[in-house]
Amino acid sequence: MTPLSLKPVAIDTYKENVAYLHRDCPLYHSEGFQALNKIEIRDGSERPPVVAVLNIVDDASIVSPEELGLSEQTFLQFGMEAGSPVTIGHAAPPVSIPAVHAKIGGEPLQQSDYLQICEDIVNNRYSKIEIAAFLVACAESGMERDEILYLTEAMVETGDRLDWGEPLVVDKHCIGGIPGNRTTMLVVPIVAAHGMLMPKTSSRAITSPAGTADTMEVLARVNLEPHELKEIARHHRGFIAWGGTANLSPVDDILISVERPLALDSKGQMIASILSKKIAAGSTHLLIDIPVGPTAKVKSQSEAMKLRKLFEYVGDRTQLELEVVITDGSQPIGNGVGPVLEVQDVLKVLKNEPTAPEDLRHKALLLAGRILEFDPDVRGGEGYRLARDLLDSGRAWERMQAIIEAQGRNPDPPQPARHTRDVVADRSGVVKAIDNLLIARTARLAGAPLDKGAGLYLHRKVGERVKKGEPLFTIYAEYPADFQFANDFADSHPAYTIGDAQ
Amino acid sequence: MTPLSLKPVAIDTYKENVAYLHRDCPLYHSEGFQALNKIEIRDGSERPPVVAVLNIVDDASIVSPEELGLSEQTFLQFGMEAGSPVTIGHAAPPVSIPAVHAKIGGEPLQQSDYLQICEDIVNNRYSKIEIAAFLVACAESGMERDEILYLTEAMVETGDRLDWGEPLVVDKHCIGGIPGNRTTMLVVPIVAAHGMLMPKTSSRAITSPAGTADTMEVLARVNLEPHELKEIARHHRGFIAWGGTANLSPVDDILISVERPLALDSKGQMIASILSKKIAAGSTHLLIDIPVGPTAKVKSQSEAMKLRKLFEYVGDRTQLELEVVITDGSQPIGNGVGPVLEVQDVLKVLKNEPTAPEDLRHKALLLAGRILEFDPDVRGGEGYRLARDLLDSGRAWERMQAIIEAQGRNPDPPQPARHTRDVVADRSGVVKAIDNLLIARTARLAGAPLDKGAGLYLHRKVGERVKKGEPLFTIYAEYPADFQFANDFADSHPAYTIGDAQ
Repeated sequence: MTPLSLKPVAIDTYKENVAYLHRDCPLYHSEGFQALNKIEIRDGSERPPVVAVLNIVDDASIVSPEELGLSEQTFLQFGMEAGSPVTIGHAAPPVSIPAVHAKIGGEPLQQSDYLQICEDIVNNRYSKIEIAAFLVACAESGMERDEILYLTEAMVETGDRLDWGEPLVVDKHCIGGIPGNRTTMLVVPIVAAHGMLMPKTSSRAITSPAGTADTMEVLARVNLEPHELKEIARHHRGFIAWGGTANLSPVDDILISVERPLALDSKGQMIASILSKKIAAGSTHLLIDIPVGPTAKVKSQSEAMKLRKLFEYVGDRTQLELEVVITDGSQPIGNGVGPVLEVQDVLKVLKNEPTAPEDLRHKALLLAGRILEFDPDVRGGEGYRLARDLLDSGRAWERMQAIIEAQGRNPDPPQPARHTRDVVADRSGVVKAIDNLLIARTARLAGAPLDKGAGLYLHRKVGERVKKGEPLFTIYAEYPADFQFANDFADSHPAYTIGDAQ
Repeated sequence: MTPLSLKPVAIDTYKENVAYLHRDCPLYHSEGFQALNKIEIRDGSERPPVVAVLNIVDDASIVSPEELGLSEQTFLQFGMEAGSPVTIGHAAPPVSIPAVHAKIGGEPLQQSDYLQICEDIVNNRYSKIEIAAFLVACAESGMERDEILYLTEAMVETGDRLDWGEPLVVDKHCIGGIPGNRTTMLVVPIVAAHGMLMPKTSSRAITSPAGTADTMEVLARVNLEPHELKEIARHHRGFIAWGGTANLSPVDDILISVERPLALDSKGQMIASILSKKIAAGSTHLLIDIPVGPTAKVKSQSEAMKLRKLFEYVGDRTQLELEVVITDGSQPIGNGVGPVLEVQDVLKVLKNEPTAPEDLRHKALLLAGRILEFDPDVRGGEGYRLARDLLDSGRAWERMQAIIEAQGRNPDPPQPARHTRDVVADRSGVVKAIDNLLIARTARLAGAPLDKGAGLYLHRKVGERVKKGEPLFTIYAEYPADFQFANDFADSHPAYTIGDAQ
């Protein structure tokens, strides 16, 4: 079979491999390829083929009939130079597809099934629709707790794993959904100031107005190489970096790329996602924060308790010391929502400024305290006080400055966005409720987290009095279109409920 | 917001709408679009936007930062000229997505849910992964029989519907899986010769070596306009055309484009797919053929019976007179497998040639007989004899010639493919079994149905004696590569089981 000439096609197809073949390519007809078919691409060596979904091209300037085009990420994965000879063939379905069919049919899967599924996914042998099929089959109550364990282990095994060479490596994770909840940037310097190792890899925002990585990036570089992370951890006992550079639980990233547009809510997937990332990152002790509230991800105590049990079940079987705290998720934490505005809150707390938001400070101390109690030398119940000492004494702030310098201080930190408008109370009274979802949506429409300075600043929290016409929150946006979107949304979807005093 | 300039991008993305935006397009950043996001595209008028999945482009020759590219089908759907000004925005999730989430959660859906889902799908508001989520949620025993009914009705309502203006419009459908089973090309001329209206729209092969439309195309044009179909039906009482030109149950085509690569086997989807197409095509009376056999789609009588009940349940509630026959699916029907080779069988039967395959003739008469009994003037049990008279007298053959002329005779009918090889018996004995799946796979590897002359010719059927070295079947392929694939597969996967005579 005459080989085709490899060509990079400058199209970003995200986590899906796509190959482009001209309709007049002789192979297109003789092999009976069709658009959306999956093909195997080989370079003539013995190494496994790369699998891609086929798009058919009718424009020779994109690919000629003698060429095979690969989208950007696919070209990188294939790893050969443009012009290299390649051969293609029909891709056999991934060997783990029968397991997905069994799962669709309601059968629980075995440890070996999950491992095979993760191996196929990490090698890009699944198309987006096959990944969607797997996720839906596992969604809702579709996974036994042992299956969550198997998936977690398989996701760890099919990626890299960091080893810090120490017996106590702590981490924390919040299941999310609460705007402004930037405790990590306080907990890390407090815990590191105590001398515990807390090498924190965080994600960027997926559906929220800011992730910890987005927020830390306001102050310092977060895109660090593994050797840099090791060096900083050795000197400063902690860092706050983006987790995407290390190849930790890469299956998780691929699953999320399909889960997110589907807005699937699967507890099993969530637990496997969180724990696989933490285990791969080399954590030995982990604190999980589950906020509960009417507009939080978890709506009730009983739901939170079920989730806690599942976390504990998997944690205990993966040699992870795991504690779960159930916290108040009835409203946003802190005042700022969006990277720059949240950083302002964090810095006020670290510097012990009088205007520092008390709820953010208290929650960070609570979480840091529980983590400090992982230290055998810290007496049970003494963690909170110890955390407070580390914060009040300025040692946490000192440590944070050292970490920022080590990661690489941002020489030109972004500022709050240009366009601002106060959203005011339409009556006098007391704030009865603030809707987390509406606050998050408004901040995202304003441009957060892509525009670091965009977002909201909340002037009132639940229980506080407000007079008609006084500002409830301020919208910050960089671009006029976003400003308009956020304003329109805020006006048509009031996030604050104001009721009578008393 | 500055509009973008519309540009067709000559990439065939099949049933998925794809839009291409340059990474340097100012909107890409300010709006926070990401690859795989869904966007709405508007032309400034009031008509509903077209929704597409976004790919990000880094090559200005594909699209420049001032342009918005649309893949071929998306451009056609949008229906504006290249260079037209368009605006884009984030697409809201389709309104029916909460119903899909409910279905994933195990809840049965209502009539209005299915209608909304089909409306969103037919307007290309679903991405491939959302369609996959819907299909998986409905797969296996995931649909109540009322839900199958609702889906069927919704698929009919969201497409066009033919009306033949007659009280008796007959049709047949085989659920498939049996190679060579080309009865439709015999049943239509027999039934039409009796004067019954049988306007047959057929599909092309999806996973089989030949569909009825592929096979009829060997003899005549099958790609006919609605007005041509009406005219032929009026004059000749029947035709055999491809159903793709009319907009009948378009949701079905979209669902199949995702179901096929997933190899999902969902009874509910299958029933809704078949019945919606038939109702939309204006049929009033329908015969369903369910072949049963160890290598057929349906493996047991009890499974066939369950399927029959479901067909009857939906049929009775959609004003379709529906009969189900359960037939022998233990081996291929006829000798040819692949369009040209099957046509040879069909013509032999129509012309009453002595070498005509008896099993194909008998099955066609059986089915035609049952359909003829839909005629109130035909006495119960007389159908088979009547069908045989119509065939033996040459009236069916006469009618078929008239239909071929009316559809447009193929002036240059394809011939059996060039490369041939006999696969011979490796021992003497009696044919005990022929595997439908392996026969179909071999024929497809040989090039069927894209190469009309490719496929297999079976020299022996179950129960027949064979001597060592005598041919069991002949492989026909047009291209050397296909010929090699089919030969290798046939040699490594013996489709015939030969046992002791006795």
